[in-house]
Amino acid sequence: MDSLNMKFSLAPLNILFLRFVFCNLTRTLLSMKLLTYNIPIFARKKSMSQIKEFNDYREKMNKVILAQDNKSLKRFFSLDHQTYGEGALSVKTKEMLGLVASMVLRCDDCIKYHLGTAYEEGISTEELYEIFAIANLVGGSICIPHTRRAAEYWEELQNQ
Amino acid sequence: MDSLNMKFSLAPLNILFLRFVFCNLTRTLLSMKLLTYNIPIFARKKSMSQIKEFNDYREKMNKVILAQDNKSLKRFFSLDHQTYGEGALSVKTKEMLGLVASMVLRCDDCIKYHLGTAYEEGISTEELYEIFAIANLVGGSICIPHTRRAAEYWEELQNQ
Amino acid sequence: MDSLNMKFSLAPLNILFLRFVFCNLTRTLLSMKLLTYNIPIFARKKSMSQIKEFNDYREKMNKVILAQDNKSLKRFFSLDHQTYGEGALSVKTKEMLGLVASMVLRCDDCIKYHLGTAYEEGISTEELYEIFAIANLVGGSICIPHTRRAAEYWEELQNQ
Amino acid sequence: MDSLNMKFSLAPLNILFLRFVFCNLTRTLLSMKLLTYNIPIFARKKSMSQIKEFNDYREKMNKVILAQDNKSLKRFFSLDHQTYGEGALSVKTKEMLGLVASMVLRCDDCIKYHLGTAYEEGISTEELYEIFAIANLVGGSICIPHTRRAAEYWEELQNQ
Amino acid sequence: MDSLNMKFSLAPLNILFLRFVFCNLTRTLLSMKLLTYNIPIFARKKSMSQIKEFNDYREKMNKVILAQDNKSLKRFFSLDHQTYGEGALSVKTKEMLGLVASMVLRCDDCIKYHLGTAYEEGISTEELYEIFAIANLVGGSICIPHTRRAAEYWEELQNQ
Amino acid sequence: MDSLNMKFSLAPLNILFLRFVFCNLTRTLLSMKLLTYNIPIFARKKSMSQIKEFNDYREKMNKVILAQDNKSLKRFFSLDHQTYGEGALSVKTKEMLGLVASMVLRCDDCIKYHLGTAYEEGISTEELYEIFAIANLVGGSICIPHTRRAAEYWEELQNQ
Repeated sequence: MDSLNMKFSLAPLNILFLRFVFCNLTRTLLSMKLLTYNIPIFARKKSMSQIKEFNDYREKMNKVILAQDNKSLKRFFSLDHQTYGEGALSVKTKEMLGLVASMVLRCDDCIKYHLGTAYEEGISTEELYEIFAIANLVGGSICIPHTRRAAEYWEELQNQ
Repeated sequence: MDSLNMKFSLAPLNILFLRFVFCNLTRTLLSMKLLTYNIPIFARKKSMSQIKEFNDYREKMNKVILAQDNKSLKRFFSLDHQTYGEGALSVKTKEMLGLVASMVLRCDDCIKYHLGTAYEEGISTEELYEIFAIANLVGGSICIPHTRRAAEYWEELQNQ
Repeated sequence: MDSLNMKFSLAPLNILFLRFVFCNLTRTLLSMKLLTYNIPIFARKKSMSQIKEFNDYREKMNKVILAQDNKSLKRFFSLDHQTYGEGALSVKTKEMLGLVASMVLRCDDCIKYHLGTAYEEGISTEELYEIFAIANLVGGSICIPHTRRAAEYWEELQNQ
Repeated sequence: MDSLNMKFSLAPLNILFLRFVFCNLTRTLLSMKLLTYNIPIFARKKSMSQIKEFNDYREKMNKVILAQDNKSLKRFFSLDHQTYGEGALSVKTKEMLGLVASMVLRCDDCIKYHLGTAYEEGISTEELYEIFAIANLVGGSICIPHTRRAAEYWEELQNQ
Repeated sequence: MDSLNMKFSLAPLNILFLRFVFCNLTRTLLSMKLLTYNIPIFARKKSMSQIKEFNDYREKMNKVILAQDNKSLKRFFSLDHQTYGEGALSVKTKEMLGLVASMVLRCDDCIKYHLGTAYEEGISTEELYEIFAIANLVGGSICIPHTRRAAEYWEELQNQ
Repeated sequence: MDSLNMKFSLAPLNILFLRFVFCNLTRTLLSMKLLTYNIPIFARKKSMSQIKEFNDYREKMNKVILAQDNKSLKRFFSLDHQTYGEGALSVKTKEMLGLVASMVLRCDDCIKYHLGTAYEEGISTEELYEIFAIANLVGGSICIPHTRRAAEYWEELQNQ
């Protein structure tokens, strides 16, 4: 059977079949670690994917960076982990501060990170949107695209 | 028929067939809203896709954001729509101002939005490139990658 | 007569005298080129001072920089002068583009420069404030302090 | 008596006398509204001056800007006042968010404004420095000079 | 045979087959120039892809931009090429300067470009990470995601 | 003798006398620590003043900040001191990296700090201007005002 014949014989393939193939493909790729991050189409299916992909890539590359044993970078990374600890301000407040700072500086990955911790700290959606409002006001309409992506990520965090 | 047999029987698949599968897949995914934005490979095929994808995602997430009913954010969004209206300066001039501001602030989504409206306002390619020149001069060579993506999006706007 | 005696004998000095001393001092310093820029108290007196001081310092330091004969910097400076020339877009439009870009990037000296050329190009106050509005919307409330200083400089340009 | 004689006869003037002249001069200038803001030497004398100068200039120029009756700018300014109101988040928390956002965006005037409101909201110095720590970590060492000026302004707020 | 039958008959497809289809698809797409850049899953397979895709897109769009014949932009682009030439500072040092500047300004494409030239100039991984350390310190933790992507790109440069 | 008489009797004061008064005043203020930083008129007289004033204010406020004993900030400050130490890259190279990063991020105080250390590391004026050229190219014409102030500060470093 040559490919041309194949073409015609496969012509009646409908949506159901393609969906089926596509889902299997995604699952397979995920299991093979070929599909790692930032692929919206595949992430659509399962709301958790964007979260997992972000965390996986973050973890993987942090390992690569820290493995180089640059003392200054290592101390900087550990400082990052410590500054957000409980103090005169609560962890929750600090995560909100980190989030608004990330948003006005328009760092999508930083926003995702802080959305994740903010979610764990039990920040409500209403509180979150008040943070978004301040960020947009202070940082301007250039923050809107980041707000869109943050709102999407937040939905995924809630649906996981 | 087991998968291994399948593997061999499908071995002679050539480009024509794969292209066919791929096109169907894309069309299907688009119709299923699984594929929404930012996927260059799928966008390659039809020059209009990048535009549609940007607008669809923008519209979808704006709805999500406004549905939260945060008054400050809502007023900010409506302010965004109003500031660019006819005044002492024409809409066309204001769109050019919004575009150059977006470019020096390196906000790709903002650039796309203003390219879309600038296109509707009848800005010529020559005028557009003079805006790009000012943006690159004021904002520096870090604006070059954004200029590349803006030039690509402009081509798509013209070819739609 | 020792200084202590002096102290008491000068005690009744009133405002009129101090004002007189101060004005002379300022005039003297200006004539001696000791007082060059950025001194608000002295600038208060004559609204034109802030403009003159900005232009003088700009001119003086540009000479210092260009005297070093770094070819790349020289070409960059000449590029800066050329990009704003008449083209598909008018000089007036280009100056407005340069102004809004400077404002969202929050560069006070760049704003002053473009306000000066915008003034020469006959931009009206109403047009100017529409540019300010776009800059604040796109760049956020962090542009407000720069808008204040721009509004002050614009008043001086009008009163010169 | 000619100036040359004067020169010699005034030669023994000592520090005490100069200090006396200088203080009178400052007081006089302040009373004459010639000296308005941003002059650290004069501000040294009274710790409240930097605060008053900032607030006076802010108020004065806001009036100039709003007098132009640009609707978009006016709505933007009023939005600025409203976003920080009580909501799901307290005013105190919102002021902290505004402060950290201002600091990472390195806007000294915005920092001063939020330090003023943060002071009124009863934020402790310990809490403040935790905000500074987050700002420096997220925004980098380029935030250090702004932290210095913020620390100085905070001291003045406490000493007023 | 209808699609529903197809669905069942294809059900036993296992990983091996999907992998086979996927690889063929990728190879085909690459050969058809449909797949050009920025698709991590496809790039995973061959470590050189990310490099090639970046360079191809850069080259392609630079041609589009320069074809418009905007003199200011053309001079700006040629200035970009010349500033990094041998001078009082070596090309290697200049590339390091360009890299750290790109990193603190968080321009991923600029970082990739300078990583490519830095690699050609023989910069060691140890030197590179000292540049990363300075960039993170000066520019703050918002540079971390860019450092991750830079570290990944550097690995690909080394493995090509 | 009333002030009005005084006014007339002091009327013939000429430049020589005013200059004399002014110089004494400056010297006195400096000795009394009333005059600390950022006052260009006083700084004009002695080219070293701008350097001293910057360093004094920096040192004074760093003490205030570190006295608060915020562990995260303290570690961040010490990290700042350590990252620029000898490593795979020389201190001289690292200072150049810190300088170019500070310039594209447009932090005048950071620029001054790195100019000071760069001067100590024996960087030549020709090398310095090649760093300026890269900064202006990468960061755009908004870096020009900072280049002016950097060029002035460099002159003072050379004339001290």
